Amino acid sequence: MEEKKLKLGIPKGSLQEYTIKIFQSAGFDINVPERGYFLKIDDPEIECFLLRPQEIPRYIEKGKLDLGISGDDWILESKAKIIEVCDLKYAKQEIKKVKWVLAVPENSKIKSVKDLEGKTISTEAVNLVKNYLKKSKVKARVEFSWGTTEVKPPRFADAICDITETGASLRAHNLKVIDTILVSSTKLITNKQAWQDKWKKEKIKDLALLLQGAVGGEEMVNIMMHIPGTKLNRILKFLPKSPTIKKLIGENWYDIEISCKERETRELIPKLKRIGAQGIVEWPVMKIVP
Amino acid sequence: MEEKKLKLGIPKGSLQEYTIKIFQSAGFDINVPERGYFLKIDDPEIECFLLRPQEIPRYIEKGKLDLGISGDDWILESKAKIIEVCDLKYAKQEIKKVKWVLAVPENSKIKSVKDLEGKTISTEAVNLVKNYLKKSKVKARVEFSWGTTEVKPPRFADAICDITETGASLRAHNLKVIDTILVSSTKLITNKQAWQDKWKKEKIKDLALLLQGAVGGEEMVNIMMHIPGTKLNRILKFLPKSPTIKKLIGENWYDIEISCKERETRELIPKLKRIGAQGIVEWPVMKIVP
Amino acid sequence: MEEKKLKLGIPKGSLQEYTIKIFQSAGFDINVPERGYFLKIDDPEIECFLLRPQEIPRYIEKGKLDLGISGDDWILESKAKIIEVCDLKYAKQEIKKVKWVLAVPENSKIKSVKDLEGKTISTEAVNLVKNYLKKSKVKARVEFSWGTTEVKPPRFADAICDITETGASLRAHNLKVIDTILVSSTKLITNKQAWQDKWKKEKIKDLALLLQGAVGGEEMVNIMMHIPGTKLNRILKFLPKSPTIKKLIGENWYDIEISCKERETRELIPKLKRIGAQGIVEWPVMKIVP
Amino acid sequence: MEEKKLKLGIPKGSLQEYTIKIFQSAGFDINVPERGYFLKIDDPEIECFLLRPQEIPRYIEKGKLDLGISGDDWILESKAKIIEVCDLKYAKQEIKKVKWVLAVPENSKIKSVKDLEGKTISTEAVNLVKNYLKKSKVKARVEFSWGTTEVKPPRFADAICDITETGASLRAHNLKVIDTILVSSTKLITNKQAWQDKWKKEKIKDLALLLQGAVGGEEMVNIMMHIPGTKLNRILKFLPKSPTIKKLIGENWYDIEISCKERETRELIPKLKRIGAQGIVEWPVMKIVP
Amino acid sequence: MEEKKLKLGIPKGSLQEYTIKIFQSAGFDINVPERGYFLKIDDPEIECFLLRPQEIPRYIEKGKLDLGISGDDWILESKAKIIEVCDLKYAKQEIKKVKWVLAVPENSKIKSVKDLEGKTISTEAVNLVKNYLKKSKVKARVEFSWGTTEVKPPRFADAICDITETGASLRAHNLKVIDTILVSSTKLITNKQAWQDKWKKEKIKDLALLLQGAVGGEEMVNIMMHIPGTKLNRILKFLPKSPTIKKLIGENWYDIEISCKERETRELIPKLKRIGAQGIVEWPVMKIVP
Amino acid sequence: MEEKKLKLGIPKGSLQEYTIKIFQSAGFDINVPERGYFLKIDDPEIECFLLRPQEIPRYIEKGKLDLGISGDDWILESKAKIIEVCDLKYAKQEIKKVKWVLAVPENSKIKSVKDLEGKTISTEAVNLVKNYLKKSKVKARVEFSWGTTEVKPPRFADAICDITETGASLRAHNLKVIDTILVSSTKLITNKQAWQDKWKKEKIKDLALLLQGAVGGEEMVNIMMHIPGTKLNRILKFLPKSPTIKKLIGENWYDIEISCKERETRELIPKLKRIGAQGIVEWPVMKIVP
Repeated sequence: MEEKKLKLGIPKGSLQEYTIKIFQSAGFDINVPERGYFLKIDDPEIECFLLRPQEIPRYIEKGKLDLGISGDDWILESKAKIIEVCDLKYAKQEIKKVKWVLAVPENSKIKSVKDLEGKTISTEAVNLVKNYLKKSKVKARVEFSWGTTEVKPPRFADAICDITETGASLRAHNLKVIDTILVSSTKLITNKQAWQDKWKKEKIKDLALLLQGAVGGEEMVNIMMHIPGTKLNRILKFLPKSPTIKKLIGENWYDIEISCKERETRELIPKLKRIGAQGIVEWPVMKIVP
Repeated sequence: MEEKKLKLGIPKGSLQEYTIKIFQSAGFDINVPERGYFLKIDDPEIECFLLRPQEIPRYIEKGKLDLGISGDDWILESKAKIIEVCDLKYAKQEIKKVKWVLAVPENSKIKSVKDLEGKTISTEAVNLVKNYLKKSKVKARVEFSWGTTEVKPPRFADAICDITETGASLRAHNLKVIDTILVSSTKLITNKQAWQDKWKKEKIKDLALLLQGAVGGEEMVNIMMHIPGTKLNRILKFLPKSPTIKKLIGENWYDIEISCKERETRELIPKLKRIGAQGIVEWPVMKIVP
Repeated sequence: MEEKKLKLGIPKGSLQEYTIKIFQSAGFDINVPERGYFLKIDDPEIECFLLRPQEIPRYIEKGKLDLGISGDDWILESKAKIIEVCDLKYAKQEIKKVKWVLAVPENSKIKSVKDLEGKTISTEAVNLVKNYLKKSKVKARVEFSWGTTEVKPPRFADAICDITETGASLRAHNLKVIDTILVSSTKLITNKQAWQDKWKKEKIKDLALLLQGAVGGEEMVNIMMHIPGTKLNRILKFLPKSPTIKKLIGENWYDIEISCKERETRELIPKLKRIGAQGIVEWPVMKIVP
Repeated sequence: MEEKKLKLGIPKGSLQEYTIKIFQSAGFDINVPERGYFLKIDDPEIECFLLRPQEIPRYIEKGKLDLGISGDDWILESKAKIIEVCDLKYAKQEIKKVKWVLAVPENSKIKSVKDLEGKTISTEAVNLVKNYLKKSKVKARVEFSWGTTEVKPPRFADAICDITETGASLRAHNLKVIDTILVSSTKLITNKQAWQDKWKKEKIKDLALLLQGAVGGEEMVNIMMHIPGTKLNRILKFLPKSPTIKKLIGENWYDIEISCKERETRELIPKLKRIGAQGIVEWPVMKIVP
Repeated sequence: MEEKKLKLGIPKGSLQEYTIKIFQSAGFDINVPERGYFLKIDDPEIECFLLRPQEIPRYIEKGKLDLGISGDDWILESKAKIIEVCDLKYAKQEIKKVKWVLAVPENSKIKSVKDLEGKTISTEAVNLVKNYLKKSKVKARVEFSWGTTEVKPPRFADAICDITETGASLRAHNLKVIDTILVSSTKLITNKQAWQDKWKKEKIKDLALLLQGAVGGEEMVNIMMHIPGTKLNRILKFLPKSPTIKKLIGENWYDIEISCKERETRELIPKLKRIGAQGIVEWPVMKIVP
Repeated sequence: MEEKKLKLGIPKGSLQEYTIKIFQSAGFDINVPERGYFLKIDDPEIECFLLRPQEIPRYIEKGKLDLGISGDDWILESKAKIIEVCDLKYAKQEIKKVKWVLAVPENSKIKSVKDLEGKTISTEAVNLVKNYLKKSKVKARVEFSWGTTEVKPPRFADAICDITETGASLRAHNLKVIDTILVSSTKLITNKQAWQDKWKKEKIKDLALLLQGAVGGEEMVNIMMHIPGTKLNRILKFLPKSPTIKKLIGENWYDIEISCKERETRELIPKLKRIGAQGIVEWPVMKIVP
């Protein structure tokens, strides 16, 4: 009987580092070799490949991979038919979202998508833009860009559609954003065949649980503190969720332990301190499964 | 009504990495862009700039910034009038202290500050050295150095005043230290106007609490262990501070949890082990607020 | 009276990063200077040197060092007489083991060590190979390789003995492995004189305890969860070791805390979740002393 | 009246360094800025852009550029209608030719293009491969590769078409070449409109003369030597072309000067020396116009 | 008797590479060590130091150096009294001139120096700017900038004075140039004492001759061609200067050799070719002394 | 019949860049691949390998190579029996000579080789040092150093023998040189078998002629100038060797061309200029065969 294996595609490039990190937090030891695309993973039931996120959806669709990680952007661009298992959105880095925006020269007469009729748009995501134009009922020429798209307007294109995190690179090339076409997030995807195989489905679901636990853990922390009994009720009222409370031996003090978003601690800790909490200790979390 | 904003200066250069790290431990997500000096921070009430530590005190004094981080060295050098909110001294890295030392060639006849009368001293911190000479009642010429100060003696200067961590670079240039002018530590600083604005003062104080919590957390760890009831008293005697003690269900064993300096564990853990502690587990801390 | 000092050799090169890291987890602050070989360590009783792992066993044997870290490979190669204090094997990175293998060109007629009779073998570990040949009762010429050993066959050597982690480099040079000579692990080593000095022996044993605690901590995590009283027994049955159990105040729920291997969480967490555990939180461990 | 300008596209990437170099040898000062795509050139009649070689033919065709440099490969791939002005083939580096080859796994059953029927080929030059298949009357699926094409067979493609210089990378991935689709050389290209504009055509032809002079100069050297009158005829017989001969004042010696390919000197110089030439001096050439 | 030595300062940083190169073309072998500031030079009569161009004029003035290379900008900034020996302006790289410009935010109301009254200007060349303001009869505050000056407006300065080559960095920070304060060129400088020492003056003058020869050589080339006797007069008319003409043995052809600016060849070569020159060969020049 | 091939070893590492460069000046196109040790060379009669200079003599001796380049140091160290074809000493870079020196701590009591009796010397060239000690009739322990030899004294060795160019690294480690064991130069070497093969010997001798021509060319330049007839005799007297003199057509001026060492031009050019030479032009030389 053939050995059961789950074929998994890990995205090379901008998503790579984060993906490896959450697999590690999920408890896997993944090793990226200097060359080649076979990733070593310490789970004999998984075969792991490093591939372009642009190509992963296509390989999933064709069954060459059972499971993969890619962005909404390349899933849509590839037009591949895949099943979305879950979102692996990294909630903490609000400020680093991948956005595909439509940009034109600062002094361009193009103010909105409607003004693109008959114009040329340069982009690495041709289908994404064609789709968007179709929805907007605008006819324009979309040209595939082999890179450094932002240098093209106004001479070589009227507009571009490109990824931006902060907009700094666009500004440096005197471009302004006139629309956001897609805010992309990271997805765990599979195909119909794998989803219908009982063993694979269960393996995928367990993996999804661990990966989501790791993603969730990224933004969480544990807090422990000592609270005088007299303040206990007052403090319990504004804690973000019900804590683990234990009475200390022989004293009217309580030991309270809670998991909360790291971001919330910015308001919580000064507040707790003011009310009378002592010995507030915070430590990092690796996974959290609610 | 104008939106409330706290203008914050983050020091570029040698203090940058550590500063970003403690902001992150304090619960903030800061993003250093590839170019430019606007730092993205996930707190809409803060505007964040990456600036030279030499210039931050000056901008604080003039009210162009409300709050900033810089070293004692550049605060003194700039002669700016500022208010020190708190020290952000990283207690753990004893061995990496920033020291401004007075150095001369190994075979120089200059043995102490007194011998500098009439000599030339090259330094990047001209005011710091002038001040020091004034206190020492020595008259000497202080020249601004545009960098690589340590190569100047004996040909281009009689002495230098420069930063040193380990002294290795000085030794490699055949220089010896004859005095330490300043041991600099990192400070959180503000100005009078900000300190008199109720909203700003509270915001600054909360920030200071979180940052100090993060700085404190750098050198702390949590330790948890199981102790047989018969050894409890003996162990409690030498624990660095009062622990959280919980009796295990149905056994004469206790679960003890304590926060202590990571450095102290080097003696504590072997000792605990010898007396009879079991299952000693240590984990890192992110913030600690006493 | 002379000050007591333990002279410690830290291996430069491939073992360096990991060694520094476990010293840091063990509670020491070690600082690698840009040049030179004196490492600063925040323990005045230790003098710390950065040296080639090939030379550390020799310096231990001669008493120029009291304690050092090196691999089995170089300990054997050096033929130095040393005492092994303990293994510092990093259990987690199963996939990164250092193996010395015997390799020949893919189309070579050499199939096993026996076929090496009269042949030439190139290697950086001449004694290791000579020893192996002696045991195998094979006579062959062993030549010292000054590097890039894998390019030598078939023109400049018939076979090589080299380190491999994944075998990728060997494959890229059209070589195949015909035997594994040694799987090397990292050792803490000392010499007879130090081991007979009471102060040194105790210091070494405490250090070994802390380093092993740090090595163990690398692969462990803490897990905390809430369990309904009705499921408590069922869950306790398959937990890897006996947990710390505390009843929550006023509810039929229990708070369970356990340390386990990070790898085990991959099966444990989905299982616990299915049975009814809630609020599962996992966090990293720095040291663990059983 | 509008200022006359020639819009010139310089290829970014692998051809960039060589292109800049021959422009410099041709007498132009070109300056590649750190960012952006405007190249500064010290000829006010030329406007110079750094663009992907994949896109230059398209921009030439559309008239967005008057003149450009690209390879045969991307000219064919783009299907753009352009006019080839001249070849800029660097004759010296025989060993560095750009070849597009068809490669399959070493143990594949595919032996020639005919065996590709129904298979999948991954490549960055989709049209090039489709064309080739059409000529070979083979039907196969051609997929665009987003990079690292050589890792795809056998799992993600049956064959690839990729650039190779030495074949080393293919071998390292266990691939073998079964056909060469194109040996690409560098071309200077323009379009019909520019070629019909008298001013532009003349400017382009002068530029072509200088660039070809520079390309030719790359592989040429000058040789000067002294020859005794008695050996003159014997030597003249085998010199590669007719030299400049001048009699030295008052002696039966001649001064001979010749330009020849650097490669030819490897045989010429030992021969000349043996016959009796003295004071052979060789120096580099920058341009050569026959 | 003391050995005669000329103490020479070579500028570290942006001028360094070019300076080393012209010394090499001038026939000197200079070796920049990895650290330290002593440059090895193969002339025992010269002692050579690598120093900041900002500090070289000051050391020349004080007699700590006899000779040095620096830019007009730092000579003026330092206010040092020095003697200018000659200009070492690199004529070829017209497009890389160092300009100190006054820049303000693109949307600033400041249109010319007059609008700076009462404003703050940030710059690394404080004296240069103060001088310029004095001449313009404008009173403004000039602040020393510790670097990345271009990020300061509008928040931390109203205007800046900074170096620019292409203006790209200014545009990227939304700044526009409102005036050029100085176009700086590279100077060979000495002091009065050295100039009055006969030995030093002669050594300096010879060095200046060689360096100027090397600078001149940078932009020159040699051209040699064959001309039919019938075209000789026509061609001689437009050659940039009188050539070396030699009649070829036994033919009505002439060998013509000329040195001219590399830039001129761009027009000369096509012209010569059209008239009937053959075998045009161009080669590089290292030094040219008219 | 077997194809004739010359097997050539090129030294990897510090001699590599220079060796490749003189092969290129000699008229060969050599291409160093990113990995592997086969060098592509555009001469089908040569097979070219990149190997450690330490191992090349050994492979020559055994006949695995016919010809190779290595230094005197490794030729001696390897004890290989080889034939020296010629020296490839780069005369220009006097200041970069490879010297093996004996060094001890600055404050050591060891003043000369005699004081080494019974001491320990660390070195990468064990045989070289043993030989030297034998000649000096001193008995000492010589230990192989695996690198960074200069850090070993005084703790891990009493003295070292290491390579130095400028002595800077030794000084930085507080070492002083007490003797120079070897000044190494680069050699072209072969073995008896190759030297007895007529075809190989001729091929080697031609190669040696071209390589020596290229080495010689490195330090030579060509000078051309115009001299008034009245000064001709005076100038001819001090020219370093007899020049090529041609009378200009119809004028009492002479065109003089000479090859000389670049170094000599430093005195020659100012002298010629003073006497009355005009239009002095200097250009580089690639090869020179006297």
